Amino acid sequence: MPYEFKITRRVEFADTDMAGIMHYSNLFRFMETAEHAFFRSLGLSIVTTQTDPPVGWPRVHAACDFKKPLRFEDEVEIHLLVAAKKSKALTYLFIFRKLNAPEPIEVARGKLTVVCVTRDGRGKMKAAAIPARVASQIKVAPVKLLT
Amino acid sequence: MPYEFKITRRVEFADTDMAGIMHYSNLFRFMETAEHAFFRSLGLSIVTTQTDPPVGWPRVHAACDFKKPLRFEDEVEIHLLVAAKKSKALTYLFIFRKLNAPEPIEVARGKLTVVCVTRDGRGKMKAAAIPARVASQIKVAPVKLLT
Amino acid sequence: MPYEFKITRRVEFADTDMAGIMHYSNLFRFMETAEHAFFRSLGLSIVTTQTDPPVGWPRVHAACDFKKPLRFEDEVEIHLLVAAKKSKALTYLFIFRKLNAPEPIEVARGKLTVVCVTRDGRGKMKAAAIPARVASQIKVAPVKLLT
Amino acid sequence: MPYEFKITRRVEFADTDMAGIMHYSNLFRFMETAEHAFFRSLGLSIVTTQTDPPVGWPRVHAACDFKKPLRFEDEVEIHLLVAAKKSKALTYLFIFRKLNAPEPIEVARGKLTVVCVTRDGRGKMKAAAIPARVASQIKVAPVKLLT
Repeated sequence: MPYEFKITRRVEFADTDMAGIMHYSNLFRFMETAEHAFFRSLGLSIVTTQTDPPVGWPRVHAACDFKKPLRFEDEVEIHLLVAAKKSKALTYLFIFRKLNAPEPIEVARGKLTVVCVTRDGRGKMKAAAIPARVASQIKVAPVKLLT
Repeated sequence: MPYEFKITRRVEFADTDMAGIMHYSNLFRFMETAEHAFFRSLGLSIVTTQTDPPVGWPRVHAACDFKKPLRFEDEVEIHLLVAAKKSKALTYLFIFRKLNAPEPIEVARGKLTVVCVTRDGRGKMKAAAIPARVASQIKVAPVKLLT
Repeated sequence: MPYEFKITRRVEFADTDMAGIMHYSNLFRFMETAEHAFFRSLGLSIVTTQTDPPVGWPRVHAACDFKKPLRFEDEVEIHLLVAAKKSKALTYLFIFRKLNAPEPIEVARGKLTVVCVTRDGRGKMKAAAIPARVASQIKVAPVKLLT
Repeated sequence: MPYEFKITRRVEFADTDMAGIMHYSNLFRFMETAEHAFFRSLGLSIVTTQTDPPVGWPRVHAACDFKKPLRFEDEVEIHLLVAAKKSKALTYLFIFRKLNAPEPIEVARGKLTVVCVTRDGRGKMKAAAIPARVASQIKVAPVKLLT
């Protein structure tokens, strides 16, 4: 029952801005990339018809501390850790490390809280219990990894 | 019955890349911005429940010639002209002009062909006649404006 | 000496994702849009040659609470408030309100801390005092507006 | 001396729009991803200090025909082929194939013409001969592959 996942991405030209560094909004996209790959690694999809009813995962809170800039062609490890698991919500910690360096360097640290929702007939979202199929596969990371 | 529309946008920081200019993919976003504002100017929405059945407008062809770079905070006029109107498709010409200059300067010229589609029960898209409510409001621009 | 600024933007098609709502990363882009328009309203630019030496404003912290979804063509007021002003850093609060509703509805609330930097000859960034020309024009908003 | 390159990418959630498919502007980002990986495969970088003077590659023409939609988590092969090589410009053809299908399906076909430029002291771009180090490594694909 995993509590972490790692994926590597390369900073693309279109991710940069005129300051010559990756635009900060793109780190939030990278967080989601890791979250969705984590689900796939469990045999799940974040966009699922595998549960009845289907559920979605809107974000209710996102945060990021930016420590060092990321530049074009940098290789970034996005290390996802499950920081909290409630009946209807999950919180992830993300540690970004630049790999193309003598030693991997932590460049940013993010957090994302997502809520499990179902939709009524008119598409309106309502918080719902995380389906057992998902919840049974995810556990919270040891505290020492989260600090 | 209009055949053109103009809208002005400012290049944002997140639109730029490390070359210090607007990333070329964003001009395709700006084309769409003008297309959708054109529809709103006609009392329509590109995402419509105003027609029965509802229709969508996937892009089948897009092109752009980039003549001069656009930079942060540049004011850009996006001039949409209806270049062709078929029973199931529309083609738009877009002329981009930088306004913060002694004289407006043409910086790019784009083209977009969109097809009117409906969706079957499983979401599969199928080309369909442009609804009268839309078609009756749009005409092709005079040739001299299109060259 | 202003402590707030408001700007309105419309959610574009390209801002949405397959969940039918604005992708959460785009609210961070909207925050920056308001920040940069705030600077312009003061006769400044975030990308400046108006100060000697020129300064940049990398983000060191960003956060957002998402309360209600934003959808295509929603009109969003981005209300920037200066939440903190230090010698080398500024913190902004952003209140997002959906205007196309019977009453404006608060849909999200964000925070951004930016640090003033100069660059050495090799482009490396170093925290620097906010130039007087900028600092003298900005003050912190009254506490009651920040809570 | 290569004339082609292939790279695979997965469609991400943030790449989709409310129509449930990848936003068309993102195919232009994917083209660039393939172009830059092609350069890396040759031991080069599109952002180079390897040539004297350094050169840049602004886009002067881009086009794409969209045949079938791409959806979240689709695996896309981006097949780059060098379609033309002039003294100061390169043209690439891109064939997009969806791999998660019984047989790979061509979903789109794009074209990109880029010009080699140097910058003068004030940053103004000027077309320049492709450096030998780059030109010597790239050749035009056989005609039969380009049609």
